[in-house]
Amino acid sequence: MTAKNTRGGFAAHVTPPPIEAVAFAPASVGNVGVGFDILGFALEGFGDRVRARRVTGESATGSATESARESASVRVASISGLSTRISLEPERNTAGRAALEVLRLARAEIALELEIEKGIPLGSGLGGSAASAVAGALAANALLKKSLNPQELLAASLAGEAVASGATHADNVAPSLFGGLQLIYSLHPLAITRVPVPAAVHCVVVHPGFELETRMARAVLNGQVPLEKFVRQTASVAGFIKACMSGDLELLSETLRDDVIEPQRAHLIPGFEEAKIAALKAGALGFSISGAGPSVFAWAPSEASSRRIGQVVKKVFLQRGLEPTVFVSSVAAKGARIVAQKRAARIVAQKRASQRVLKRASQRASR
Amino acid sequence: MTAKNTRGGFAAHVTPPPIEAVAFAPASVGNVGVGFDILGFALEGFGDRVRARRVTGESATGSATESARESASVRVASISGLSTRISLEPERNTAGRAALEVLRLARAEIALELEIEKGIPLGSGLGGSAASAVAGALAANALLKKSLNPQELLAASLAGEAVASGATHADNVAPSLFGGLQLIYSLHPLAITRVPVPAAVHCVVVHPGFELETRMARAVLNGQVPLEKFVRQTASVAGFIKACMSGDLELLSETLRDDVIEPQRAHLIPGFEEAKIAALKAGALGFSISGAGPSVFAWAPSEASSRRIGQVVKKVFLQRGLEPTVFVSSVAAKGARIVAQKRAARIVAQKRASQRVLKRASQRASR
Repeated sequence: MTAKNTRGGFAAHVTPPPIEAVAFAPASVGNVGVGFDILGFALEGFGDRVRARRVTGESATGSATESARESASVRVASISGLSTRISLEPERNTAGRAALEVLRLARAEIALELEIEKGIPLGSGLGGSAASAVAGALAANALLKKSLNPQELLAASLAGEAVASGATHADNVAPSLFGGLQLIYSLHPLAITRVPVPAAVHCVVVHPGFELETRMARAVLNGQVPLEKFVRQTASVAGFIKACMSGDLELLSETLRDDVIEPQRAHLIPGFEEAKIAALKAGALGFSISGAGPSVFAWAPSEASSRRIGQVVKKVFLQRGLEPTVFVSSVAAKGARIVAQKRAARIVAQKRASQRVLKRASQRASR
Repeated sequence: MTAKNTRGGFAAHVTPPPIEAVAFAPASVGNVGVGFDILGFALEGFGDRVRARRVTGESATGSATESARESASVRVASISGLSTRISLEPERNTAGRAALEVLRLARAEIALELEIEKGIPLGSGLGGSAASAVAGALAANALLKKSLNPQELLAASLAGEAVASGATHADNVAPSLFGGLQLIYSLHPLAITRVPVPAAVHCVVVHPGFELETRMARAVLNGQVPLEKFVRQTASVAGFIKACMSGDLELLSETLRDDVIEPQRAHLIPGFEEAKIAALKAGALGFSISGAGPSVFAWAPSEASSRRIGQVVKKVFLQRGLEPTVFVSSVAAKGARIVAQKRAARIVAQKRASQRVLKRASQRASR
């Protein structure tokens, strides 16, 4: 008898769900230069972890959403790691808000306690708020009798992300949840699709070591795009998708560019232009701002190349008196996943015992 | 001994080039809804023809471009077919201007006479000026000792197209010259790439039977695009390219849309909204304006489907008192080509004779 998670189906757990689960969700690069608000890819190796633990309703505090006001609740017990200046209020915490949304969508009247471990620096432009939201949603989901489907998990994660960004942007949430390079091809209604990337392509991300608030980086943007730039950017993103799908690295290098957003934000990152020139000279296929910054990223034709580019970019930021950190990753990293879970052995034993009792009773009744 | 055309190389014709050539260039759908100024596809079966004839310098009149002022010249002898209200002045005629540009690029000091046969109605939004330019360039090119390369032919065709549109737009010229669905992925410098389309997909084009000037249709456009619409349209075009390349018709139907230009131009075409609703209801994957209009087009999952859609759209325009014409085509039509050519038999004979004389002389000299 094994536990069975039917995505979005009606099959219940035969064994009870775990009472504790740890989810990992990777950092990600939103926008990818060429696709403002519509493209993002997951990074290997670092991200946020959320541990969700089932608690009795009485011990859990914190607000609950309207439809499950009676007993669904989430408490954020602790935040550790790289960013601890985050609200513990579940409604104002991306992981807490996402977990609450999972309970609401599942109509699960249970109480959860979350422990958040931040592996992504705050205000780095590496999708930290999205990763926490995704990990919160995934950890909460693991404790349900009936799992949510991927679309519902995406919706719950977005509700979490909205706490931080003030709006629902899926360009970090989608890659953190599903992995790889994700294209949001429709915003209303939200619809995403994965874009294959040539296997050799690697990326390097350099965090210059200071914090930039997403809201601030959004505030500098002009609400209008000149028609000529609109045409140029649609041309680039269309060519970029063809390049990714056909594995044409030359076309990739010609189209991985941002003529609309990057020029408006580059001044927020000291040394940006210098770093870009150095990266392209060192063989980068493209170089731009990761999400709202201040991290920058480059795509390169190989892992070795991406390491070299990382070093030249790091040097530029060091010369500016910053404290840069370099990450190298494939651009086809896996998405969020459950990395540990715990079942209540006693409860399982009790349930099995009660099932035996019931079985004997029914056998007796049918004699 | 056969004639050899080395594209852009230095090999000369062994036999002299033809003295007369007829080029055909197909009509095309620019913008394709989703890709304003950057996407276009060629149509099967109808287009413009240009006959170019070598004449002696003395008999040719008309202006010549600066670099070849001495003797390169083009005369437009006649215009026949669907649109005869076109200037005969070579500098103000798209075929004439393109042919002149071919002579300039090739540094060919020869005189040409052109006969233009218009198969595409003027001001229909079906790339008529581009087709004439392409056919003019191709016919002139066929008479050269050294053919231009494809990039030069594109440049010459664009110079011709600019006469009509007031600017260089390649979204009709590129598909008319090279066939299929062409993406202009960079505007400065101009760079194009072909996007494969699922084989089953067909298109239907309906010309409502009235004329709309491209300049006028451009004048109604706002010079600024709201950031939100910019994001939405980049999402659509990126998804559209993925759909074409992966053969995903569902994704195609979700992304073949124009939220930026179409809403600004739809009022120029009586019955547009009604025709669109009817087309989508009849199974169209997408429906929008062809180029600057007034022709409209739909993509459909099969040829039969595109024929049905053509009929429902035709009906809408008929009810408005218009005189619509329906064209059905694959979206992978061939590009421009030479359909006839004539060599000067006498000249060939003379040259062969003189070569024999030279050969004998050199044999004698080496004894």
